[in-house]
Amino acid sequence: MTEPRVLVLGSSGPTAGPTLPPGLDRLAGRAEVVFGDEKSLAGQLSGADVLLVWDFSSDALRTAWPGPGPRPGWVHTASAGVDRLLFPELAESDTVVTNARGIFDQPIAEYVAGLVIAMAKDFHGTWEFQRRREWRHRETHKVRGSRAVVVGSGPIGRRIGVTLQALGVEVALSGRRERDGDPDFGRVHASEALPALLAEADWVVCAAPLTPATTGLFDAHNFGLMKHGARFINIGRGPHVVEPDLVEALRTGRLGGAALDVFGSEPLAESSPLWEVPGLLVSPHMSGDTIGWRDDLAEQFLDNFDRWAAGEPLSNVVDKKLGYVPQS
Amino acid sequence: MTEPRVLVLGSSGPTAGPTLPPGLDRLAGRAEVVFGDEKSLAGQLSGADVLLVWDFSSDALRTAWPGPGPRPGWVHTASAGVDRLLFPELAESDTVVTNARGIFDQPIAEYVAGLVIAMAKDFHGTWEFQRRREWRHRETHKVRGSRAVVVGSGPIGRRIGVTLQALGVEVALSGRRERDGDPDFGRVHASEALPALLAEADWVVCAAPLTPATTGLFDAHNFGLMKHGARFINIGRGPHVVEPDLVEALRTGRLGGAALDVFGSEPLAESSPLWEVPGLLVSPHMSGDTIGWRDDLAEQFLDNFDRWAAGEPLSNVVDKKLGYVPQS
Repeated sequence: MTEPRVLVLGSSGPTAGPTLPPGLDRLAGRAEVVFGDEKSLAGQLSGADVLLVWDFSSDALRTAWPGPGPRPGWVHTASAGVDRLLFPELAESDTVVTNARGIFDQPIAEYVAGLVIAMAKDFHGTWEFQRRREWRHRETHKVRGSRAVVVGSGPIGRRIGVTLQALGVEVALSGRRERDGDPDFGRVHASEALPALLAEADWVVCAAPLTPATTGLFDAHNFGLMKHGARFINIGRGPHVVEPDLVEALRTGRLGGAALDVFGSEPLAESSPLWEVPGLLVSPHMSGDTIGWRDDLAEQFLDNFDRWAAGEPLSNVVDKKLGYVPQS
Repeated sequence: MTEPRVLVLGSSGPTAGPTLPPGLDRLAGRAEVVFGDEKSLAGQLSGADVLLVWDFSSDALRTAWPGPGPRPGWVHTASAGVDRLLFPELAESDTVVTNARGIFDQPIAEYVAGLVIAMAKDFHGTWEFQRRREWRHRETHKVRGSRAVVVGSGPIGRRIGVTLQALGVEVALSGRRERDGDPDFGRVHASEALPALLAEADWVVCAAPLTPATTGLFDAHNFGLMKHGARFINIGRGPHVVEPDLVEALRTGRLGGAALDVFGSEPLAESSPLWEVPGLLVSPHMSGDTIGWRDDLAEQFLDNFDRWAAGEPLSNVVDKKLGYVPQS
């Protein structure tokens, strides 16, 4: 009996060698592991049983898929978002897609909670005054008692909501459909309720999956519904936001501040005007990436491989129509 | 029957007029209110029944006290710390001292929680890269599961501890004496246990009252007990820290970072080297000062005035030997 072939899509940077998952020795004697990068992927795809998309920022799969011959029956991506994988040819195929659901929840929730407090207390302003050696006392905002709407009721959005609640923030969680009796939030609000929620919130956090329904969700219209001076945080995907509309909402003061961890084009070009928009905090898509995250991602794939090899149901199977793993 | 005289110690800045408490009209017809500043205080003290130290950063009282004639029987300070009031002549007198216990707990706890996350996620570094238009992804630290020791078991320290616990931090609270059966922390640790606690902590937070026992507590010896790379936060009083020892602990890497909201000399002089110590975040004594804080402080005094006028026991009476309001 031949070993199954596991194809790992890594990335080859200009200076560094390919970035590969740690711990793959767990597959020794159980699978043949083949490494590919953007260039070699098309030639390797047909012989693979399993594809691990380790470089989740790559668009190589869209170009290479399906290619000649049999395709992998299982594709796992080392990311929570699966937007790059759900092009029609893969979405409509029989191939099962799984994701890294769960790995990023806690780090991202902490990151967002930190941004909320940092904006409430104006840490950025304080550190600017520090650079200028200026002692400038200001009064800042209490976090407790403020109101947030978290858009996205998946595990990342939920964890953000629970973490903000622990700080005394009143949180409304906005999902696709209304659900009552939620143990943490009472009600999950339907997307139709979002306009009313936006009007009440001091904090608007985007933690949605990127789907046709959420692409461009944060545009001039929705920024215009927000409270004067509200703050906006996006840790979802860049295309959730119409970036020029965000810049305008900051310029007019409709928004009191914003923080983007994700962008329409990544890495953000040095020439991008976003770096210098007053009130906009820019971070390089790192909110979920805590020390050890690559080990956690690899271990999660390997655990799923054990299930696959044993013929058991996989974890974190994406509903390719919805674009995310449905709540169990 | 003559109205009691309430003397309010405000401050006269070089440009602004004296800063006065809001809402004193509540005393109309019930007390004669007199305003003093650093210069006039000595001449006004003897005729006053009550002294409200509104400008709590002033040392004027130490100079003016006791002066000729009868002294106020009650001094209230619009601050949590009473270190500036407990000079021997006042500490040993019959005058009752009350403070602003409770007003600053939640704002300071939020501020500290924000600093913890900001340091774990290196927001400061990210915003420096933003200034330089550099997209520089880094892996950061999880907050959940890290360990903190909070020095100071008064209401501010407790609220900090509870807030960090809500973020999943394991918190040890260090007070003067050991107490078991604490509802939030199980055990409050005695000051003798501090060395062992310092060795285990990722985060060391000073929220202690400034007393002879805590002055200079954070010195080379105690920094030397801390874990390599630990982070230190002081929202207590400047003299808790031996500033040159802190700078050295940051320079050698013993400390992985520090944040000071209070300083041995305030405002921090433009020429102070502290502004530019790598890894040191400087803020201008503002951690507790949220919008509306002056209203809250004035209302707290006025509520206590009602008790005083009715002959009822005052709230927030400082134990002048301990230097703080004891736990009830």
